[in-house]
Amino acid sequence: MLRRELNELLTQTGPGTPMGELFRQYWIPALLAEELPEDDCAPVRVKILSERLIAFRDSHGRYGLMDEFCAHRGASLWFGRNEEGGLRCSYHGWKYDVTGQCVEVPSEPENSTFCANVKLTSYPLVRIGDILWTHLGDPARRPEPPEYEFIHVSPEQVYTSKRWQESNWLQALEGGIDSSHVTWLHSGALKSDPLFKGARGNQYNVNDLKPFFEVAEADGGLFVGARRNAEDGNYYWRITPWIMPSFTLVPPRGDHPVHGHFWVPIDDENCWVYTWDYHPTRPLTGAERSAMMAGFGVHSENIPGTYRPVQNKDNDYLMDREAQRRGEHYSGVKGIAIQDASLQESMGPVVDRTKERLVPADSGIIKARQKLRKAALALRDAGTTPPGVDPAHHRVRSAAVVLPREESFLEACADAVRATAGVPHATI
Amino acid sequence: MLRRELNELLTQTGPGTPMGELFRQYWIPALLAEELPEDDCAPVRVKILSERLIAFRDSHGRYGLMDEFCAHRGASLWFGRNEEGGLRCSYHGWKYDVTGQCVEVPSEPENSTFCANVKLTSYPLVRIGDILWTHLGDPARRPEPPEYEFIHVSPEQVYTSKRWQESNWLQALEGGIDSSHVTWLHSGALKSDPLFKGARGNQYNVNDLKPFFEVAEADGGLFVGARRNAEDGNYYWRITPWIMPSFTLVPPRGDHPVHGHFWVPIDDENCWVYTWDYHPTRPLTGAERSAMMAGFGVHSENIPGTYRPVQNKDNDYLMDREAQRRGEHYSGVKGIAIQDASLQESMGPVVDRTKERLVPADSGIIKARQKLRKAALALRDAGTTPPGVDPAHHRVRSAAVVLPREESFLEACADAVRATAGVPHATI
Amino acid sequence: MLRRELNELLTQTGPGTPMGELFRQYWIPALLAEELPEDDCAPVRVKILSERLIAFRDSHGRYGLMDEFCAHRGASLWFGRNEEGGLRCSYHGWKYDVTGQCVEVPSEPENSTFCANVKLTSYPLVRIGDILWTHLGDPARRPEPPEYEFIHVSPEQVYTSKRWQESNWLQALEGGIDSSHVTWLHSGALKSDPLFKGARGNQYNVNDLKPFFEVAEADGGLFVGARRNAEDGNYYWRITPWIMPSFTLVPPRGDHPVHGHFWVPIDDENCWVYTWDYHPTRPLTGAERSAMMAGFGVHSENIPGTYRPVQNKDNDYLMDREAQRRGEHYSGVKGIAIQDASLQESMGPVVDRTKERLVPADSGIIKARQKLRKAALALRDAGTTPPGVDPAHHRVRSAAVVLPREESFLEACADAVRATAGVPHATI
Repeated sequence: MLRRELNELLTQTGPGTPMGELFRQYWIPALLAEELPEDDCAPVRVKILSERLIAFRDSHGRYGLMDEFCAHRGASLWFGRNEEGGLRCSYHGWKYDVTGQCVEVPSEPENSTFCANVKLTSYPLVRIGDILWTHLGDPARRPEPPEYEFIHVSPEQVYTSKRWQESNWLQALEGGIDSSHVTWLHSGALKSDPLFKGARGNQYNVNDLKPFFEVAEADGGLFVGARRNAEDGNYYWRITPWIMPSFTLVPPRGDHPVHGHFWVPIDDENCWVYTWDYHPTRPLTGAERSAMMAGFGVHSENIPGTYRPVQNKDNDYLMDREAQRRGEHYSGVKGIAIQDASLQESMGPVVDRTKERLVPADSGIIKARQKLRKAALALRDAGTTPPGVDPAHHRVRSAAVVLPREESFLEACADAVRATAGVPHATI
Repeated sequence: MLRRELNELLTQTGPGTPMGELFRQYWIPALLAEELPEDDCAPVRVKILSERLIAFRDSHGRYGLMDEFCAHRGASLWFGRNEEGGLRCSYHGWKYDVTGQCVEVPSEPENSTFCANVKLTSYPLVRIGDILWTHLGDPARRPEPPEYEFIHVSPEQVYTSKRWQESNWLQALEGGIDSSHVTWLHSGALKSDPLFKGARGNQYNVNDLKPFFEVAEADGGLFVGARRNAEDGNYYWRITPWIMPSFTLVPPRGDHPVHGHFWVPIDDENCWVYTWDYHPTRPLTGAERSAMMAGFGVHSENIPGTYRPVQNKDNDYLMDREAQRRGEHYSGVKGIAIQDASLQESMGPVVDRTKERLVPADSGIIKARQKLRKAALALRDAGTTPPGVDPAHHRVRSAAVVLPREESFLEACADAVRATAGVPHATI
Repeated sequence: MLRRELNELLTQTGPGTPMGELFRQYWIPALLAEELPEDDCAPVRVKILSERLIAFRDSHGRYGLMDEFCAHRGASLWFGRNEEGGLRCSYHGWKYDVTGQCVEVPSEPENSTFCANVKLTSYPLVRIGDILWTHLGDPARRPEPPEYEFIHVSPEQVYTSKRWQESNWLQALEGGIDSSHVTWLHSGALKSDPLFKGARGNQYNVNDLKPFFEVAEADGGLFVGARRNAEDGNYYWRITPWIMPSFTLVPPRGDHPVHGHFWVPIDDENCWVYTWDYHPTRPLTGAERSAMMAGFGVHSENIPGTYRPVQNKDNDYLMDREAQRRGEHYSGVKGIAIQDASLQESMGPVVDRTKERLVPADSGIIKARQKLRKAALALRDAGTTPPGVDPAHHRVRSAAVVLPREESFLEACADAVRATAGVPHATI
């Protein structure tokens, strides 16, 4: 249970809020690279951390992310012409380059210096992997680019998607570091989803309904270890890393690719869920890639031309009571991503945490909130750089292993939770 | 005309409001019985008196009505599995029985007593007649179950429906105790509706456009008498009982079944209108039942799978100016229920009663408001049980009679307005 | 850039606001005459200056504009019966004449004087030209009827339409007196629109991208002169009159009809755009009229049965990136009216003028705001009648002329900007 003030502190990420400033310390996903597929393509409206921005890719392949609205009279640059090295407002022809600098005001005389003094707020936009990353904070504090493993493997090894979620980012993240719901909500998928089924470890998930949680510190966040009984006095450990502010990896299953998420606040009542599958040591198969595109695994099938899932709040996620009754989908909702989305959105746009009752199985959530709160206040009060900003913190992996009961999961897995190129991941 | 403060007092029914507390003294309809048709069927989201609840029927036929949201992290129990004697949250498997008591938290150790201390706010849910009734107030003050006649006749004698109305409950109720609008708004229906037409009394409705109103006290509310001229120095009296908080019966017409309503606040801008037709002494005919299902009489044709009328605010109630011009429907809107809904909703979600101008024909409305106000304040200030709580108050009937001018309607109809099993109703 | 307080002063037009009172000094369009096509036709809901009204035309051809809601209990008179010289509420039969006077309360006794004391707020509604005009202010200050030329030419010479715009009125008006955007936003239309193309003057529009603006006082508002270079040391002048509060005329092109607009606030986030084409000295051709009906020129194609454009905010105005790329439509949006609407609406419901950066080309906008502010405050503080109220101020014209460099546009065009019946307009 949280006090109301603390719930607001953790969930509000607009400019000037403590958690908003925290998010502005990090490189975060702004778009998928596919959204700006070629030079001079259509600009894209982007809202993140409650700021309304326009993203574009100029004639020379440079990416720009800046205020959506023209400095002149406030018309949206979404109607602009992306041509000849800049984005030109359709209203009066004012033109901006990718840094937000105004480079032409046609009504001004030839020798005018007016436009040199006009600059839109702008942010860097950098492609690494399938994602265009941005940093909305003070350039003087801008860290080195992100080093998450999934954006540095070769393109054949990874598939990335995104979906719009109609809830605050924090309840989405909390679902991501909460390994205990898999047994219930996703129990059908463990048996049938082509990107989940067949792993030896799945039986432990299904057989032990009372996982024990142990949470360990990571340089950039936490390692949440979920321990279940295995045979012969062993434990089955599933280790979920969370790197601040909102990066997680799902523990692997057999030789399946590893799933991961990055939650990015759109505003306080909506977020983007960036989702990927990657395999550290081999290309994805055609079958895997097709399954991901079709919304299996942790991906979603979206309404064409949008990133809104076909199954959404307005259609009750196409909940099917018969499928629920048959046990095909535990909640009646199809697909792991939408199973999560449906329950997280059902809590309301911002869940009222003054009413919750947490249990030991929620220890990952509890510790993550404490870490977020501490980091946001240390930043606000002392300017302290929070965990996870340093790209070295990004090089983590999830793991799923069977260990003798007496072993500490983190000591035993010290290598397993470190991302090392070319080294297979620890999975069962 | 009401002062703004009084308008708010009478229209606001959320937890803690005086009128909300008044409503919480009564058994009120929560659902139609048809909404929970069998054991272990799908749970149903219910919002009443601004509380968001979930209703379900367990494996043993017990009904439950409780907080919609799981005590753990706030996920909606609408996604829950209704099985094995309880409703289990799909997120982490927490399970509740029909009293809201948590009976299982799977992540807890075998011997844990944790869940014994977890209980959702819950309310009784009892089937009487076609309706599932609830009482949202203090259990210590819970009255005996309701005794309205329509829920105690045999099933063949009654048909019950409901519809969503997009307005505050009070302006809906006021339409129900306002007999004077029938002559105007429903004049077409008096001639053509299969559940209205043909009664001898209808001619008096049509011929005397200036009814005189006399309002008498009832134990549980009021009897609103509308007097119109009949032949030979007689009066045609239509007597509408209103039992607090929001039960009314339309005066009968010939041998047609008797119509009735119960208005239940959803929140301050929406209400449920429960509607029934019953005949005190005979089964409904097949033709009558078909007409009710088709939206004749005071019923509505609803969008399949919902309780929203096909004719609604978003389509201007399918108003037909030609039909209005021809006199087929006085306001151009088809159907008595939707004629009422359209005008009541046109007043706005909560009508501004500081602007109204009431006339003697509104004396029923005026007296009902006085009674509601007095009862709400007496409850708040002195804990006084309001009229209509005692089930003996429920056993009333409407009546339509022709009386000599000198007779007092209430004295003459003392028997007629009392519900007595097996005795025909007083109708002309 | 405006201070926030000043932005609110200029954009808010509800009852009691300074700008609202200013608007209430003028005759303004309430409806198109086509909306009340015959005696006893359907009444029409009208919202202007944040007041919800009902307009109707009685059995004797008289027009009425009054409170939408019945004085009795607040039901909408839109459901009323328009018959026998008045509008009768469908709920209880209260009847009103076109002055808002209640003429019958059926429930009252024969000799009752009650209804004589019931009168709805009402406003005059007068047909002049294709428009029904109203005046929402103090009757004692009501000016003589409007004398704009387009409503006094013969019906063959004019075509009038309207559309709903989802923005505050002021940013719409500002688009109308901003001649400099034509070169950019409407550049495609200059070449292809049947109501724009082919005029000799168009080449100057296209060739000189740096118009110079000179703004001169008019009795009723301003003349905004936009000067572009022509051949042989001459200037091409386009003169846009703005008559307060929100009437403008587009400068003519060759023998094309003259376009004009009147912006009327619906509420603070929406406005009606009344639009006309008229030719001072000849009937419109069939081809011209057809083009206007199809949404060419400054008209829009509306959703049948409504005044909402087919291309609107909800469908991104059917923006076509390929058409933008080909240069067919500069912003990718088709049609001059919708090109304007799309950009003006993209600024948000009320653009935040604290963030704008105006330039010399915006001098018309700057001066208009100053005049509006000054007039609103003089009215509030000293009761001063604002410019544009006197119908003599209405008799202006736009003009497009080529003048020697040394001539003052206003002196040279003194006759050209005066509306004189039978005299051709000054155009090139």
